[in-house]
Amino acid sequence: MESLFIEVKKSSNILKNISAENRSFAIKRLGELVQDREGDILKANEADIQNALKSGLSSPLISRLTLTPKKIADISDALCTIAKEADPIGEAIGGGIRPNALRIIKLRVPLGVIGVIYESRPNVTLDCAALALRSGNAAMLRGGKEAVRTNTLFWRLIQIVLSNSGLPEKSIVLIDDPDRTKLAKMLKADRYIDLIIPRGSQALIKYVVENSTIPIVKHDKGVCNIYVDKDADFEKALKIIYNAKTSYPSACNAVECVIVHKDILGAFIPLLARKLKSAGVRLLGCDRSVKAGGVEPIAEWGEEYLSLTLAVRAADSLEDAVNFIEQFGSAHSDAIITENYTAAEYFLKWVDSACVYVNASTRFTDGGQFGLGAEVGISTQKLHVRGPMGAKDLTTYKYIIYGDGQIRE
Amino acid sequence: MESLFIEVKKSSNILKNISAENRSFAIKRLGELVQDREGDILKANEADIQNALKSGLSSPLISRLTLTPKKIADISDALCTIAKEADPIGEAIGGGIRPNALRIIKLRVPLGVIGVIYESRPNVTLDCAALALRSGNAAMLRGGKEAVRTNTLFWRLIQIVLSNSGLPEKSIVLIDDPDRTKLAKMLKADRYIDLIIPRGSQALIKYVVENSTIPIVKHDKGVCNIYVDKDADFEKALKIIYNAKTSYPSACNAVECVIVHKDILGAFIPLLARKLKSAGVRLLGCDRSVKAGGVEPIAEWGEEYLSLTLAVRAADSLEDAVNFIEQFGSAHSDAIITENYTAAEYFLKWVDSACVYVNASTRFTDGGQFGLGAEVGISTQKLHVRGPMGAKDLTTYKYIIYGDGQIRE
Repeated sequence: MESLFIEVKKSSNILKNISAENRSFAIKRLGELVQDREGDILKANEADIQNALKSGLSSPLISRLTLTPKKIADISDALCTIAKEADPIGEAIGGGIRPNALRIIKLRVPLGVIGVIYESRPNVTLDCAALALRSGNAAMLRGGKEAVRTNTLFWRLIQIVLSNSGLPEKSIVLIDDPDRTKLAKMLKADRYIDLIIPRGSQALIKYVVENSTIPIVKHDKGVCNIYVDKDADFEKALKIIYNAKTSYPSACNAVECVIVHKDILGAFIPLLARKLKSAGVRLLGCDRSVKAGGVEPIAEWGEEYLSLTLAVRAADSLEDAVNFIEQFGSAHSDAIITENYTAAEYFLKWVDSACVYVNASTRFTDGGQFGLGAEVGISTQKLHVRGPMGAKDLTTYKYIIYGDGQIRE
Repeated sequence: MESLFIEVKKSSNILKNISAENRSFAIKRLGELVQDREGDILKANEADIQNALKSGLSSPLISRLTLTPKKIADISDALCTIAKEADPIGEAIGGGIRPNALRIIKLRVPLGVIGVIYESRPNVTLDCAALALRSGNAAMLRGGKEAVRTNTLFWRLIQIVLSNSGLPEKSIVLIDDPDRTKLAKMLKADRYIDLIIPRGSQALIKYVVENSTIPIVKHDKGVCNIYVDKDADFEKALKIIYNAKTSYPSACNAVECVIVHKDILGAFIPLLARKLKSAGVRLLGCDRSVKAGGVEPIAEWGEEYLSLTLAVRAADSLEDAVNFIEQFGSAHSDAIITENYTAAEYFLKWVDSACVYVNASTRFTDGGQFGLGAEVGISTQKLHVRGPMGAKDLTTYKYIIYGDGQIRE
């Protein structure tokens, strides 16, 4: 691995000074190539799926693994969008002239080498490759073994594009690591890798956090909540919850728990149960919700179901709902449904999550939806980046200082 | 410790919504109180110094521990400056209206609870307390045992101010931890602490990096280099190197190695040796530097002396100097002395350090000098913050999103 680390580091040094135009060209070509090779991609993906089914992979993971012509077109579009984005590198983001005439410029520069550790979703391979190139970074991608055929094909397409664009071939490498041998080495390679992004199961993230000597941006679980206030518009509430639960249940921004003000419990829960059951959603809840009808008793709060299961809890007050979210949520995305101005602003002020919504679906927490082109992940930590993580978030800065002989008194 | 963590976390939740004016008042009062109590502070500090001398603390650490009336006045000034700074909290730092009419606002908010682990320098106690308050954060300060008397007095002054300003008393706590028992617990308290900042010896930082499950911003060693180009103005070079080595040798931004282009080696080294020896500096260098005169043979490159010792190395070219800095520097602060435009820009482009200077002393790498009021430390990592770290760097952001019923297709 050491020699690979050195080669990737060298590639990152070359990449730092390759023009934005050149990098944009490569990303655009990658987007086109993905569309052109739809058939091959679906074939490789089908082989991965068959294998995953045989080995008994859970259904949310199968769903994350699966590509469709629509998903491939979306990936291709995302890449073409990233190719058109303004380049973040070289931007002057601060500075000024000090009283002693030193001129300081704070300059955006690439981080260097990014390590991405992920599972299932093969689109991450392409998104991360494109965002790494957009931000002038090299990347080491360590995907899951369940997606190895799809990822390997994607990596071959990336290699074609790098070679056609005159970019170093070791700018993007795919780490084939069926056990965690290579991962363990990556996590200690702090001389070569500048950032580790783990996305995936809690077990994987825990392993990375406990073993990495490299700074991390976690893409941890999303236990998203929607609070239905006593002044909620029921129609909006039902539409939003239905969307947040059923449009993509295995996504981290899907809602996992609905909190309902006690005053509207009796009226709202039966409507919610009826609407969601039409989509096959199972509701689990507290005693009061069970009493309201259509809800089975819940065993544990704060679970990330990633499936057609939804927790339901009664709240005594807005404050009670906010406290519940602080205790059982994961500070990812939480929403209030209300027509009450003061309630909305209270919720926005006191819920300390990456994304706090009023009257909208939590499913919008997404790099593309936020206008970042695509995302490397959704940061569930507060340091460096929070929420959707785009190309700019893969950069750092350095200060360059112009003097004419200044010394410090 | 668990109950203390909970109390500090609670204080941080209260602090988040205390007005900027109120926090400014507390910081200003702290600055005034420090000046008022100069006599007591010097007495407590003298007791720490006597004790440190007895226990054989190294002289750079004694120097970092020692307060003088001048240093106390500087600390007081820094606090009053922080009190006047614009408040970072609540600033809208991005956002916009999406095509679906969702209105997204990216809002600067406090991190929550900051843990600072430091040694020797007692001023860190006050600087960090003030910057934590400025940024709406609670702080757990774990100082070194060698400064315990000075730190405890400072903490008492902080308590007076918190109480007089109506701020929660557990906003700032000082952790008395003569061994590392409490530190070990802090580093695993990821439910309560949002950021750990270790400043101090490499052993301490290594311990923190290897044991923390909380995100870290490292204030690691400063192995700063000054490259004297063949087109350097000798007078500027001598003045700058003299300042960077002798004005505060135990500071992390002091120069540790001077690299001299081979073409001017014979002319420059004897001048440098003469000038520096007048201040008691010992020069250690490569064979070619030794030959040039006034330099003893060096055993190892890349050392952080923190004393009146300076490494000297000949470079075959500008590129050679840049490679040497990459290999043996610590990416903290590096400078080129040259009158040549192309050489200056080459150096600024290729040296990937937090601060890269042309014709100025590396000693300027400092929060105060950069206009940040004071600093929590100098980040030697690339993630979240790089270089001098001020109040803004103790913040994160959250997205608040105003909808009117939007769902995701």
